[in-house]
Amino acid sequence: MLTPEERYRERAQRKKELVDRRIARATTDRGVVVVNTGNGKGKSSSGFGMLARSLGHGFRCGVVQFIKGSFSTGEDLFFRTMGEAFADRLEYHVMGEGFTWETQDRERDIAAAQAAWAVAARMLADEDVDFVLLDELNIALVKEYIGVEQVLAALAARPPRQHVVITGRGAPDALVEAADTVTEMRLVKHAFKAGIMAQKGIEL
Amino acid sequence: MLTPEERYRERAQRKKELVDRRIARATTDRGVVVVNTGNGKGKSSSGFGMLARSLGHGFRCGVVQFIKGSFSTGEDLFFRTMGEAFADRLEYHVMGEGFTWETQDRERDIAAAQAAWAVAARMLADEDVDFVLLDELNIALVKEYIGVEQVLAALAARPPRQHVVITGRGAPDALVEAADTVTEMRLVKHAFKAGIMAQKGIEL
Repeated sequence: MLTPEERYRERAQRKKELVDRRIARATTDRGVVVVNTGNGKGKSSSGFGMLARSLGHGFRCGVVQFIKGSFSTGEDLFFRTMGEAFADRLEYHVMGEGFTWETQDRERDIAAAQAAWAVAARMLADEDVDFVLLDELNIALVKEYIGVEQVLAALAARPPRQHVVITGRGAPDALVEAADTVTEMRLVKHAFKAGIMAQKGIEL
Repeated sequence: MLTPEERYRERAQRKKELVDRRIARATTDRGVVVVNTGNGKGKSSSGFGMLARSLGHGFRCGVVQFIKGSFSTGEDLFFRTMGEAFADRLEYHVMGEGFTWETQDRERDIAAAQAAWAVAARMLADEDVDFVLLDELNIALVKEYIGVEQVLAALAARPPRQHVVITGRGAPDALVEAADTVTEMRLVKHAFKAGIMAQKGIEL
């Protein structure tokens, strides 16, 4: 009979071996396409977190926001405070004309999305860009402001070591199929529905 | 008959009214408890993103990592580069003794988790701390290194404007019940399973 401590150690040892084997099997080394979708929180803020990681590693990074205001004022302020340290390695574009239900003009929404896409496409073709965050691109795809084929072609033709993170609810099936890592942020509950205002540091 | 443009404008207008009504109803203004759980990517990096927002707003922030190494080297490097700008407003503790399947000693794991919890409890009782990130706390709860009742009591007694973000898979039901906003990060697919190594800027 094993003591509880021995059982604990044995279980931990098996887990470690499993993890070590998985790590040994993962030998392909290339840029990945990450998609954060679903109706829950954290799609953009996780993309922002990966951007911070990439800047930490010394990567050259590009960000295009397809919905103005989807990065919070807190993130904007953070970048403004910190911007100088990374200014030479970060290109940051805020595009679009505000949330679409604010503009009420489809032609204007399409033009704004296409202008944002032109910037994104240039980054995706640039050998010197290591990490690209296309924030809320999925919204523009769902609304058919941008064709998914355009996006898939640009992803397929990008430099092999370049990472791309695409966020927004409603990621099209073809994009999920093409991506390497896909997470669905599922809403379990939200303070807003219980009558709590959007909070600085959390939503803002 | 409405033209397509008129229909678009009418739909956008209805959506705007719905959003405006929801915003008008959300009148409670207080600190919130946010839980990021599930087996997908983005739980910690989203917490990191909210930390950046909070720092951007000038908040005093505390971070306790319950699993050493759960923040990536990229995030650590980012903080090291940026740290001076926020040094007076950020208290950052990395606790624990590495992933538990690396230590293989339950007593040591419990002691490390309890030491980390003591730091967290002090932050949760501090009127001057606006934002607390308890990264991978759920892991310590699932393994019963820390009792969920301890955590619920500290959350209930905290300063009313303080925000708390708790991450990690397997959030206990009682914590989900007590939280204001809960997201399940659901794994749809992961590059690692297709044999792709963990990538700098994405996982590392």
